[in-house]
Amino acid sequence: MANQKNENRNKNGEDGGLRAQVSPVVVRRLPRYHRYLGELLREGIYRISSAELSKMMEVNASQIRQDLNCFGGFGQQGYGYNVKFLYGKIGEVLGTEDGFRAVIVGAGNLGRALAASHMFERRGIERIAMFDSNPAIIGKTVSDLPVLDVSELEAFCAREKPEIAVLTVPKEAAYDVSVRLAEAGVRGIWNFANMELKLDEYPDLYILNVHLGDSLMVLSYGIRSRMK
Amino acid sequence: MANQKNENRNKNGEDGGLRAQVSPVVVRRLPRYHRYLGELLREGIYRISSAELSKMMEVNASQIRQDLNCFGGFGQQGYGYNVKFLYGKIGEVLGTEDGFRAVIVGAGNLGRALAASHMFERRGIERIAMFDSNPAIIGKTVSDLPVLDVSELEAFCAREKPEIAVLTVPKEAAYDVSVRLAEAGVRGIWNFANMELKLDEYPDLYILNVHLGDSLMVLSYGIRSRMK
Repeated sequence: MANQKNENRNKNGEDGGLRAQVSPVVVRRLPRYHRYLGELLREGIYRISSAELSKMMEVNASQIRQDLNCFGGFGQQGYGYNVKFLYGKIGEVLGTEDGFRAVIVGAGNLGRALAASHMFERRGIERIAMFDSNPAIIGKTVSDLPVLDVSELEAFCAREKPEIAVLTVPKEAAYDVSVRLAEAGVRGIWNFANMELKLDEYPDLYILNVHLGDSLMVLSYGIRSRMK
Repeated sequence: MANQKNENRNKNGEDGGLRAQVSPVVVRRLPRYHRYLGELLREGIYRISSAELSKMMEVNASQIRQDLNCFGGFGQQGYGYNVKFLYGKIGEVLGTEDGFRAVIVGAGNLGRALAASHMFERRGIERIAMFDSNPAIIGKTVSDLPVLDVSELEAFCAREKPEIAVLTVPKEAAYDVSVRLAEAGVRGIWNFANMELKLDEYPDLYILNVHLGDSLMVLSYGIRSRMK
């Protein structure tokens, strides 16, 4: 397993050129392109014009051409994009080819909901275990994942070296668990604990704080706007 | 209740001027300001300079002044922002004063996790009921909410007139349930069903599709970037 991962790392090094060409603004839009292209593949559609993609995604066609140009000479008149190639290239930039593995810390309702989702495997990420502190669920299996005692976190991470931790513990526990994860070598934390997590002491750790409440406010604003 | 709501609507009409002054780009940033200001209030902090807010939010101070200028003559040298006033004004724009009420359709793990969250009440939204089709949980109470039979959706909405529906049903059921909600007069759908929901037949309905997988890709990209 370790060898396989190293090979992936080497391969990534080689496409550093492609990544360097993609601007940060475009990168933020890539997950959505990746998702739509994945849908097309599942529907058996292998070519699509920028006009069709534009209609489907509700983004104007010139924006699409501009965003996707750096991935190669695609989208010529009358040819359209090669969906599979583009999906693969965008995935490489986003890291779906890196073989990242994830643990979910917190086996409550949200942890279980995330564990049951297909989004990890669809994006090349393998879920390998859940952790909790509740003796009533430790040792059980949730969505094919073993629920381990959170006291085993360090030993598990030393052995399995997961890159990603999904954090669904209560707010109060989030900081301590995060420091333990960082010390144990985890590279990224997807934080659902509903608090702004910052660990400046670990500059190599990438933290993504999810704020569903912000999304709820966008909904509320959208409703309010249409009521005028 | 109905009267109270109408009063809110009228009040909203009067502050149309403020809303009109806020550009769409700034609106997208408002939920985050609202969240930070709410945190400050909970900590008992009633004044903050743009420099302090800048440090806390990791946004540059001139951006903050530019974003918040339209809310009135605040942020003068040596005075700082009036946290409570600003929090209230931003909330008004976002719709927290509108007394919106929400139902959660789907009482699985994700529905339960959302039902248990404080984010609704913190943003002025009242959760009033959950719906499910599973006889084993219909009639139970989850986070103080009754779980009702989804067959009662239309009758309930006709009576209680919730503006918001949180959709956590399986992908396959999402479209049908959404049409029923739209027909029943719901104004906004917060869609967690992991599919792109579009109901062009209901132009007054605001749909916000949540794609956690896109967020996972941002995490993956962030980790990958720091590994170089």
